[in-house]
Amino acid sequence: MKKLLLVYIVLIATLMAYLYVAFVREDNNSLLDESAGLIGTTEEKYVMVNFLTGIDYWKNCLKGFEDAAEALGVSVEYRGSTQYDVQEEVMVLEQVIARNPAGIAVSAINSEALNAAINKAVEAGIPVVMFDADAPNSEAYSFLGTNNYNAGVTAARKMAELTGGSGKFGVITLPNQLNHQERTRGFKETLSAEFPEMEFVAIEDGKGDQLVTEQKVRELLERYPNLRGIFLTEANGGVGAGNAILRMGKLNQVKLISFDTDKGTLDMVKSGTISATLAQGTWNMGYWSLMHLFHMHNELVEPMPDWRESNVPPLPSYVDTGITVVTQSNVDLFYAK
Amino acid sequence: MKKLLLVYIVLIATLMAYLYVAFVREDNNSLLDESAGLIGTTEEKYVMVNFLTGIDYWKNCLKGFEDAAEALGVSVEYRGSTQYDVQEEVMVLEQVIARNPAGIAVSAINSEALNAAINKAVEAGIPVVMFDADAPNSEAYSFLGTNNYNAGVTAARKMAELTGGSGKFGVITLPNQLNHQERTRGFKETLSAEFPEMEFVAIEDGKGDQLVTEQKVRELLERYPNLRGIFLTEANGGVGAGNAILRMGKLNQVKLISFDTDKGTLDMVKSGTISATLAQGTWNMGYWSLMHLFHMHNELVEPMPDWRESNVPPLPSYVDTGITVVTQSNVDLFYAK
Repeated sequence: MKKLLLVYIVLIATLMAYLYVAFVREDNNSLLDESAGLIGTTEEKYVMVNFLTGIDYWKNCLKGFEDAAEALGVSVEYRGSTQYDVQEEVMVLEQVIARNPAGIAVSAINSEALNAAINKAVEAGIPVVMFDADAPNSEAYSFLGTNNYNAGVTAARKMAELTGGSGKFGVITLPNQLNHQERTRGFKETLSAEFPEMEFVAIEDGKGDQLVTEQKVRELLERYPNLRGIFLTEANGGVGAGNAILRMGKLNQVKLISFDTDKGTLDMVKSGTISATLAQGTWNMGYWSLMHLFHMHNELVEPMPDWRESNVPPLPSYVDTGITVVTQSNVDLFYAK
Repeated sequence: MKKLLLVYIVLIATLMAYLYVAFVREDNNSLLDESAGLIGTTEEKYVMVNFLTGIDYWKNCLKGFEDAAEALGVSVEYRGSTQYDVQEEVMVLEQVIARNPAGIAVSAINSEALNAAINKAVEAGIPVVMFDADAPNSEAYSFLGTNNYNAGVTAARKMAELTGGSGKFGVITLPNQLNHQERTRGFKETLSAEFPEMEFVAIEDGKGDQLVTEQKVRELLERYPNLRGIFLTEANGGVGAGNAILRMGKLNQVKLISFDTDKGTLDMVKSGTISATLAQGTWNMGYWSLMHLFHMHNELVEPMPDWRESNVPPLPSYVDTGITVVTQSNVDLFYAK
């Protein structure tokens, strides 16, 4: 009798186990079919690749990338060249591709040098999007970053507001980099189109260096003693220019507009040495890069049956992540938390 | 003995049921806590509002909006003015706002007329994004649509390819609408910047009408008998121009580049009357509009604590949904399925 009971128990337990598995499987399936939401797996690994991986500027990009990954239940990894070294970034990107990740977001140290590696990834079926610094001639699916021309327009209008819209003005920039050329062009063209009494007198190369920029500002002020303002298209230049006008006692005469929100720049905005700095939408760059890659990897893109053949881009080609003008009134909100 | 067996069975069944419920609950909880994915509820209703609601052009925008809603498990509704009537669209938008939806994607019949209603929605906490046709001075969070200037650039380069890059060229457009002005400017500026032997001779108003455009093309060809090409910035114009060159026997001389992918235009691309037409990324407009609204409604945006106070845009300010050149070689893929 006890044996019979045991047989019953085993039979019933087996039946329940079977029903359980069947029920749960069905449950999961219906979840996926109806409205599972956008969700991936932790095995899906997305990689962010850039250069000078240690600088503060990338922290918020990576935070956006990580926040999107957390929302979608996928994994991320952060890689890149530690130095400002084109070959190192190419090598790191090649290594990342070899491990066949779910997708790669790349910020290009150089607008051409990474094309071969990027195209290799895309042709191997690994989605690639560009963020912050584009490789426009590569086969990457989209670019997410600042509209640098518009940032220059914003700087010009802010400069007009700060100075009453007249006088002589200059730019200190990196004249060989596309994004800095665009910032300069937006600034210069807006002065001539909208502010006829603002005279654009000089473009100087600050070499992205604080001390070089400080020296250039001194020279500019010797040549143009009445200079009313300088637009610095890059963060180190802002601090260098700030030091120059402080040491020359020209704080009230020369208005400075800088770029980005590293601590040195924010401190000078807070103290009033730099009148305004332009904050880029770095969190949005990272967040929406991951969102784009997730959509490509999971084929949640435009349901055109043959988008490769038709040349229809499967993703929006460009996402303008925006610019915010940071001044004394809102600077406290931009210090890293 | 049989009673005892029954008691055992009931006990075991109860235990299994308990274990099942406990297991499934835990499973669901861990799913929600760790990586629920991006998912909403069917009570979350997002509304698309536009004008001339019945035209084919919107179908793919709405499809993108619906596909995103399905992926996220939320609801959508499609509203707008049936006529080309500014007051009607304003009224419909006011009615939609009154029902307090989770978010609204608006295509503006007029770049200024909807500002008051849009701002009212945003101030009431209802997220608004613009798609296809922007209201740039409103408080909407983002704009998702074609970069019309770049579309004109693309048209100019394609025209150069079709005609060997020399001769006289014209544009037929809607000269009072911003998006058409931008397309014209991109075309014209690219001819003068990149193709010195291509001469831009005329801009005409086709009034968005097939017959008016046909007549304008006839007049243009009387004035410039050697005209090599016309860029039509709007779909009805493409068909009108096609009819004109067919009836005048100028098919081989005059190359036409049109806009959009309604059936009439596609038929003329297929037959070779229109050499190329520019397809907009309409599915992407709808899809990413809903994605933006979902992120605003669920506060999945840049985690800046006071983004209103800091003026940091919570979403990318602009999404360029791209352009595809449609020719005889890929036209079959663009017919509605």
